[in-house]
Amino acid sequence: MKFASRLERLQDKALLNAMELTETEDMISFAAGFPSSDTYPVEAIKNSFIQVLELEGKEALSYCSTSGHIKLRKLLAKRMQDRFKLDFKTEEIVITSGSQQALDMSGMLFINKDDVVLFETPSYLGAVNALRAYEAELVALPTDENGLTMDSLKQAMDRYGERVKLIYVIPDFQNPTGRSWSVARRTEFIEFISAYDVPVIEDAAYSELSFENKLESPLSFYDKKGQVVYVGTFSKIFCPGLRVAWLCARKDLMEKYLILKNAADLSSSAIAQRQMAYYLQNYDLDNHIKWIVGRYKERRDHMMEVIDREFPQETRYSVPRGGLFIWIELPENKDSRILLRRALVEKVVFMPGGSFYPSGVKNNEFRLNFSNMSHDEIEKGITILGKIIREYLSE
Amino acid sequence: MKFASRLERLQDKALLNAMELTETEDMISFAAGFPSSDTYPVEAIKNSFIQVLELEGKEALSYCSTSGHIKLRKLLAKRMQDRFKLDFKTEEIVITSGSQQALDMSGMLFINKDDVVLFETPSYLGAVNALRAYEAELVALPTDENGLTMDSLKQAMDRYGERVKLIYVIPDFQNPTGRSWSVARRTEFIEFISAYDVPVIEDAAYSELSFENKLESPLSFYDKKGQVVYVGTFSKIFCPGLRVAWLCARKDLMEKYLILKNAADLSSSAIAQRQMAYYLQNYDLDNHIKWIVGRYKERRDHMMEVIDREFPQETRYSVPRGGLFIWIELPENKDSRILLRRALVEKVVFMPGGSFYPSGVKNNEFRLNFSNMSHDEIEKGITILGKIIREYLSE
Repeated sequence: MKFASRLERLQDKALLNAMELTETEDMISFAAGFPSSDTYPVEAIKNSFIQVLELEGKEALSYCSTSGHIKLRKLLAKRMQDRFKLDFKTEEIVITSGSQQALDMSGMLFINKDDVVLFETPSYLGAVNALRAYEAELVALPTDENGLTMDSLKQAMDRYGERVKLIYVIPDFQNPTGRSWSVARRTEFIEFISAYDVPVIEDAAYSELSFENKLESPLSFYDKKGQVVYVGTFSKIFCPGLRVAWLCARKDLMEKYLILKNAADLSSSAIAQRQMAYYLQNYDLDNHIKWIVGRYKERRDHMMEVIDREFPQETRYSVPRGGLFIWIELPENKDSRILLRRALVEKVVFMPGGSFYPSGVKNNEFRLNFSNMSHDEIEKGITILGKIIREYLSE
Repeated sequence: MKFASRLERLQDKALLNAMELTETEDMISFAAGFPSSDTYPVEAIKNSFIQVLELEGKEALSYCSTSGHIKLRKLLAKRMQDRFKLDFKTEEIVITSGSQQALDMSGMLFINKDDVVLFETPSYLGAVNALRAYEAELVALPTDENGLTMDSLKQAMDRYGERVKLIYVIPDFQNPTGRSWSVARRTEFIEFISAYDVPVIEDAAYSELSFENKLESPLSFYDKKGQVVYVGTFSKIFCPGLRVAWLCARKDLMEKYLILKNAADLSSSAIAQRQMAYYLQNYDLDNHIKWIVGRYKERRDHMMEVIDREFPQETRYSVPRGGLFIWIELPENKDSRILLRRALVEKVVFMPGGSFYPSGVKNNEFRLNFSNMSHDEIEKGITILGKIIREYLSE
């Protein structure tokens, strides 16, 4: 059988493998970007499902509109206004089946084969996969402590010009490094890029997970041109099992997104959307987020403490001020994939760094997720990792 | 802004428009292929959600594996064996977010720009949209009362040869015509096509909705080569709001599908899958289907009766022996889109036939769904349609 040429570009199975392990027991997993299942408000969700099924059971079990449940979209418009002063209207929001689908749809909308997509480096491997599937040429731009470096962006726009069809960025508590863009970088970026007619995907998956209780204005807030497409999700602030996320785009763009959403899966789950709307109306999501952020901060602190104690001096890392990840750097001649193979034997798993490079792969780094494991598991797993790293570095 | 070239091929918004109307009130809709919301076992589903959240709440609200909840896949393997003697193993099944996603993934897997896909004509417009999005050349082959005509298939394989990368068919109670393939046609098709190395997508969405209580063996049953990819869904036999469907493919193909599923949306909803697994284990789906099939048969009978009474003699149609649709033919010089515009004014909606033509569009037909409206709505809506058709034909 013959396969589409895009298959050749989809060689990285790191994320698939991490997902496939979700139903495996006994594994200490620092791999995927999973929130802590201890934090899910199970009772409130159960009650919301009961209420939705009792009050609007037929509608909840039917197909939803392609754009998504209107009540949920209204609530999202209001919430984005309240939290981030974003002015997206209800009809500028489409509900997607997780933010991954929003990225897939963006590839579908903007990318022809060999078009250029600019990425931060390293960047989220799910986005890398989604855009590789459309046979984009992925160009990774350097980042510093304040975000995407402007010099590299200017050079890339000069070099690739009209071949650049999309820019993908995560300005808040970036996956995988945990870094956030400074306000100055945000405004500088928007000022520069507004001279071009290229869309920007702003992935805001971690934007509310600030350990310093400080929400930054999104790129979309500064965007006056309708150039930034904003992607939000409940996966990290509520739970991922419902697969409810949303994409915001201005009217003319949204019309096209809806055609693609319809072709991709007709609509997202009506019951999941109605459950979410019920929860937002009857519970306090902001307070829930405040609580989980407190827990994640504790876990970050604990993981940093064990890392400081157990990892050898040659490893480098910085303290993330939010999000779910710590990014670890080994000496340049070392390979985190070798480390992973050894860790798996001892039932510890993490994400090797190479997968996060859209281009110019480096293999001496890896990503640790700190949100998903208990204190005891962090203690045990990081201690095991520390031992393996020490052994590996001494070879 | 520049868009991908695939957007140019996605001009048909009939399905999108039908979906967008789902939250509109006061409309008598014979448009979309919706099951009857009266048939949803709301209490059983509510109880299943409660049980799942109480027994395995954390897992149900977490990410699922990309391949899907293993218990559900086991139950599906057994069910397909019991109902259709299909021998797909658990690991040959991936859960998808509705069967639309399975079609989208199939386009993604097999189609490069300008590859040929063979369709029955007319055929499901969601599949047409999904495969257009990959810029396939859609070639529509004639059908007769027994299914895809073998002569036209042979001619197409001769003419297009290795350019044919996919064949998409609905052998049971086809959408939009309601026709089924005969056993002879099924075996003849498989015998012929097994000489080629081309994959066949068998869309089995309606396979259990037989009004004569007669389940035909799927193409996959006759396929000894692993050439047929089987797509099943709960949307028509249970409810569509959960977005739970499944795709079966042999091992080497499945590995590739999983890469694409991961890139598309990481995984389908864990809670929806676990709810479905709980229902299958604790309730009698087969009995439920038997019951809804009885109701749909009544609605078909009622709609046929009103059509016979109200539609003018010049309209042609045949009685479907299962499924959800009646296909109506107007005289050749008439256009069902004109009819639709007039019907919408009177708050009646249906699907104009042109959307179901992958190529060589004909506009004098339209599709009526009979499952989704009550007896009273059928009476009222078909009577209105009859009046509009009589007026239109007399012009």
